[in-house]
Amino acid sequence: MSGEHPAYGLADLQADLRDFTTERDWRRFHDPKSLVLALVGEVGELAELMQWVPADEAQALFSTGRAHERVGEEMSDVLIYLLGLAEVLELDLLTAARAKLAAARLRYPADAAGGLPKSRI
Amino acid sequence: MSGEHPAYGLADLQADLRDFTTERDWRRFHDPKSLVLALVGEVGELAELMQWVPADEAQALFSTGRAHERVGEEMSDVLIYLLGLAEVLELDLLTAARAKLAAARLRYPADAAGGLPKSRI
Amino acid sequence: MSGEHPAYGLADLQADLRDFTTERDWRRFHDPKSLVLALVGEVGELAELMQWVPADEAQALFSTGRAHERVGEEMSDVLIYLLGLAEVLELDLLTAARAKLAAARLRYPADAAGGLPKSRI
Amino acid sequence: MSGEHPAYGLADLQADLRDFTTERDWRRFHDPKSLVLALVGEVGELAELMQWVPADEAQALFSTGRAHERVGEEMSDVLIYLLGLAEVLELDLLTAARAKLAAARLRYPADAAGGLPKSRI
Repeated sequence: MSGEHPAYGLADLQADLRDFTTERDWRRFHDPKSLVLALVGEVGELAELMQWVPADEAQALFSTGRAHERVGEEMSDVLIYLLGLAEVLELDLLTAARAKLAAARLRYPADAAGGLPKSRI
Repeated sequence: MSGEHPAYGLADLQADLRDFTTERDWRRFHDPKSLVLALVGEVGELAELMQWVPADEAQALFSTGRAHERVGEEMSDVLIYLLGLAEVLELDLLTAARAKLAAARLRYPADAAGGLPKSRI
Repeated sequence: MSGEHPAYGLADLQADLRDFTTERDWRRFHDPKSLVLALVGEVGELAELMQWVPADEAQALFSTGRAHERVGEEMSDVLIYLLGLAEVLELDLLTAARAKLAAARLRYPADAAGGLPKSRI
Repeated sequence: MSGEHPAYGLADLQADLRDFTTERDWRRFHDPKSLVLALVGEVGELAELMQWVPADEAQALFSTGRAHERVGEEMSDVLIYLLGLAEVLELDLLTAARAKLAAARLRYPADAAGGLPKSRI
């Protein structure tokens, strides 16, 4: 629709993160190994949120309310450091992920994939 | 611009992943705790790629060639499971991450952030 | 009993690992951040083993047979890198863990701990 | 030596953890996938401690003082959940790790291992 604002996308988030990091002079801390450790820290917080929740209650619990917000914050932190790593490696994450999914389509044909594969994507 | 293809975005990737999962009847495996464990598995592969590379050589090494491709594949897997989790929790990851970044701007004012904070975003 | 071989303990494993590392001249790779990334890699393999197994079947599945062996191998790798980190930091892991457990006893009195704490140890 | 106290070992720690868990009725939360998520949470805290420390300063920083204590606490938590998992799977972790190290000796002969292997143990 003419005049519509285009949706905020992953590239916009990455640009905003770039500004955020530059304004604070934090790029100097962002070597790849440090960024992966920071990512691990955030994945740890995500895991901690869910660790003692019964497996069959987790989806309902984290789909609404304060638990939904909290899990969204931790998932955001994971995405933020993943984009930070993409930034320093000049890597186009969406293009890479699209290609990975295309490769997974070839590796796991839809009509043969009824079972429980060891590793799927 | 009229007639231009809109860029492939995160929402498109999430929709493609939804189709991929549905076609293989894999949604039944996607409870939140299992998806976080799968995410952890992919983060582990990302960490393994970098573990013995000297810290000051990692950026150059993973910015080109086969190492760049490999790191892009592992980062894609992390993103894919993060989107898989967003899918089952009906969570808008981009909106959540944008809000998290806005909160980080308040928490770490640009002119006061010269040091090395314990946790930054 | 006189003449009995003392049991192989954690200190023996750490000494054997020290020899293993020295003989291969691998100590030079063992800075703390690299060792934590290696630990993360092994935790990822442990997570991958379990990711798609239904939560209520995991204990039985991994308690016998080939799955028991496999999980034991991945858990061993985690322990091995944890000891590698203890080695470079000259840290007595058993003494530290014993103290951590004593602190947990104070923090979570036994008679008040019927519920599901957010974080327990 | 007769009358000497035997050193506190990994089996003693595991027994103390068993008591601690039983007294609090927490064994019911300890299915394998939950324990691995708890382990991931602790590994995340370990990673967070080190994430922004320059790689070549980490060993010195974490070898003394408060940083040494803190890293010991996080490493203890990792060990504690690893033993918790060993407990529910009736797995002898020391025996498994000793066997894994023996296998690594065969896989990486000492005189051929000068380089930087992708994955070493």
